[in-house]
Amino acid sequence: MQPYELSAAEAATLIAAKELSCEELARSTLAHIEAREPTVRAWSYIDPGQVLRNARELDKAPPAGPLHGLTFGVKDIIDTADMPTQYNSPLYVGHRPGKDAACVAVMRHSGALIVGKTDTVEFASSGRKAATHNPHNPAHSPGGSSSGSGAAVGDKQVQLAFGTQTAGSVIRPAAYNGTYAIKPTHGAVSCEGVRSASHTLDTLGWFGRSVEDLQLVARAFRLLGAEAAKPVELRGLKIGLCRSPAWEVADPYGRAALLEAGRRLEAAGATVFELDLPAPFNGLIKAQQLIARAENGPAFLSEYVGPKRHLLMRNYLDVVENVSGITPAQLIAAYDLAAECRRSFDAMFGAQLDAVLTPSSPGEAPEGLACTGDPVFNGLWTLLYAPCVAIPVGASPRALPLGVQLVGPRFSDMQLLEIAQACAPAIYENSILAAQA
Amino acid sequence: MQPYELSAAEAATLIAAKELSCEELARSTLAHIEAREPTVRAWSYIDPGQVLRNARELDKAPPAGPLHGLTFGVKDIIDTADMPTQYNSPLYVGHRPGKDAACVAVMRHSGALIVGKTDTVEFASSGRKAATHNPHNPAHSPGGSSSGSGAAVGDKQVQLAFGTQTAGSVIRPAAYNGTYAIKPTHGAVSCEGVRSASHTLDTLGWFGRSVEDLQLVARAFRLLGAEAAKPVELRGLKIGLCRSPAWEVADPYGRAALLEAGRRLEAAGATVFELDLPAPFNGLIKAQQLIARAENGPAFLSEYVGPKRHLLMRNYLDVVENVSGITPAQLIAAYDLAAECRRSFDAMFGAQLDAVLTPSSPGEAPEGLACTGDPVFNGLWTLLYAPCVAIPVGASPRALPLGVQLVGPRFSDMQLLEIAQACAPAIYENSILAAQA
Repeated sequence: MQPYELSAAEAATLIAAKELSCEELARSTLAHIEAREPTVRAWSYIDPGQVLRNARELDKAPPAGPLHGLTFGVKDIIDTADMPTQYNSPLYVGHRPGKDAACVAVMRHSGALIVGKTDTVEFASSGRKAATHNPHNPAHSPGGSSSGSGAAVGDKQVQLAFGTQTAGSVIRPAAYNGTYAIKPTHGAVSCEGVRSASHTLDTLGWFGRSVEDLQLVARAFRLLGAEAAKPVELRGLKIGLCRSPAWEVADPYGRAALLEAGRRLEAAGATVFELDLPAPFNGLIKAQQLIARAENGPAFLSEYVGPKRHLLMRNYLDVVENVSGITPAQLIAAYDLAAECRRSFDAMFGAQLDAVLTPSSPGEAPEGLACTGDPVFNGLWTLLYAPCVAIPVGASPRALPLGVQLVGPRFSDMQLLEIAQACAPAIYENSILAAQA
Repeated sequence: MQPYELSAAEAATLIAAKELSCEELARSTLAHIEAREPTVRAWSYIDPGQVLRNARELDKAPPAGPLHGLTFGVKDIIDTADMPTQYNSPLYVGHRPGKDAACVAVMRHSGALIVGKTDTVEFASSGRKAATHNPHNPAHSPGGSSSGSGAAVGDKQVQLAFGTQTAGSVIRPAAYNGTYAIKPTHGAVSCEGVRSASHTLDTLGWFGRSVEDLQLVARAFRLLGAEAAKPVELRGLKIGLCRSPAWEVADPYGRAALLEAGRRLEAAGATVFELDLPAPFNGLIKAQQLIARAENGPAFLSEYVGPKRHLLMRNYLDVVENVSGITPAQLIAAYDLAAECRRSFDAMFGAQLDAVLTPSSPGEAPEGLACTGDPVFNGLWTLLYAPCVAIPVGASPRALPLGVQLVGPRFSDMQLLEIAQACAPAIYENSILAAQA
């Protein structure tokens, strides 16, 4: 086994025991990236010399914590002091922010080895696509907008990576790339230094190769309520299987992933029951889309009035000009519906419900790179501010990974990770799923 | 009359007519700043040579719009590409961001002349105070955290300036410095590049010397719903005079300012009636404080884990360590109360109510610089996301300005400015107010 193949949690143990150096891990990582980059193209920036120098410095320094030396990718809409931050936009070629985003600084000061910047959909919104291919089947998309981060972790190029989710840009690529990920409760982690598209929706998340990997990062963020989290038993866990209002959009493999995950959990002793969301939740998918579009206006105004406006894709001009004619009343109705549903969603949990099990994506990753997939199974949870954890289930006959997500009430992030830790071994099988009508 | 004495709107007219050059305005501005800075100390950074060079470039360029050449101060928690951004923090001495904050970019591309960075309370939170004195009585505070911006506009050193409000840091300094200001609807203007303390509450605002000045900037931001705004007649305008749940905290001059403003509006033909907020609103002041404190945790984590932690004031360590023991349930209750009150506040407007008239501050600016005043009359409106416009009323016998604010429903910013435009001439008198028991 090569060092790059170790999960974050496995490598952390070896590094702490001095059985693996940060430099060894870095060299193995860089060699794997070099071999795979022509196929996967996950990266918008890597300086291997810088990575090795930083790894050697980490080996000289006293361990900064449990992330010491672990390999980390950073989506290229997130500021880094020592690397360009270009948003995959022609307006920002070579742009250098003056400091790390808060999330990058927290990882760096916790000992993580920042390997490079991962490719993204332009501004993590609806502009240019990343050049990234799905590592499991390069004819397919890795999803987006966190395309490079999902693919890099799914391809074992790094152990951990940051993504962001405004509709479904963390959980959906996690499913497509066969990896784990968390989109935490909105606001639980600072978005300072992360390019904003929609302040109500933008949420920082991260990818890992196991639930333990996700927990390592979550602990470094000192999430509110973390001290109340307790390990859970799978037996008796109450799981609400929610097809979601978008079920009709799911393909036969997306359906198979959800139903099979439910069956496997039940077989392992959990109590799984169908959960229908109350009627007002049917409006959340449209509300999320409307809020994103309305908030894109202020988010892209500075580029709109700036000297490089001619490099902006039409879509960004449209949102600033509000060509869809969104009114204050419509936007306020969307905000107020979301607030009402947040409250009623949280109230579902307790004696009757521990976690919601629901699709991560409509199913297989789309063919080609033109479409990064539909976030229709994600937008409502993002708008609910609810923490979501993506868990792989298996693969389709075309070797395309399939996944599901567990969703919990606001600020239950660490408890949801405990639930995911209990559920994940039962949910995942290295096998081909049969299509489900 | 010197050019620096012109309001933004007055100067814009002269510049458009080529009766005033940007350089003339800049020279007059710099001379006035030089004369006043030893007393007021509004600025953390000014490079007069750079200001003059930029002014001359503006004179050579075709007019970029109605802000062409107008003088603008930027609170030093807001990124500027060509000036340091230091947050009044020893952790960020000499820090240079790689680009302008979105709001600065919008102003710059609209032709504004960025004069310099204004002093602020550290991180616009509860750290070191600004060195700024109240220009009307230097023995007193200019308020905070937008101390320098409020004082600079109140002292006619610049025509316009950005501030930010998380509790009451725009509207309160506006009152203390005898100037106009708007805190727009939360989210109506991008906070990209503005140092964050509390993502739910942080709101960019601006100071001006008249309502028209505020409108000039508001138009450049293309606020949602702007096209629906119409000029209003003062006669028959329905104004709800709201003492607010904090009335007991108001001093005799704060009370006088509100009640006198109400009387003057009534005398000018408006319909003024006492407005009591529904009972749930009584919880908003505490909810705002709890949300700010909880959200400070993630906001200051990167400094907490970083190498300059020893330079952080105790308060920042406390919020990261959550020493006050805030629980998820408490935070969620505060969020949900706010959402409920936002909806019911908006519903009060319409046939029965055009705007709420309420105190901007407890009254006179505090003596000394140790305390920037109590934001108790601001936090609830900030949490309601409601637009607020500060309007001067007069002064106390100690020459300390007194003000009030008008508040409207979410996304009525441009209409609220029209209402303020109608009300302001009636509300303000250059006279001394008598104390009110």
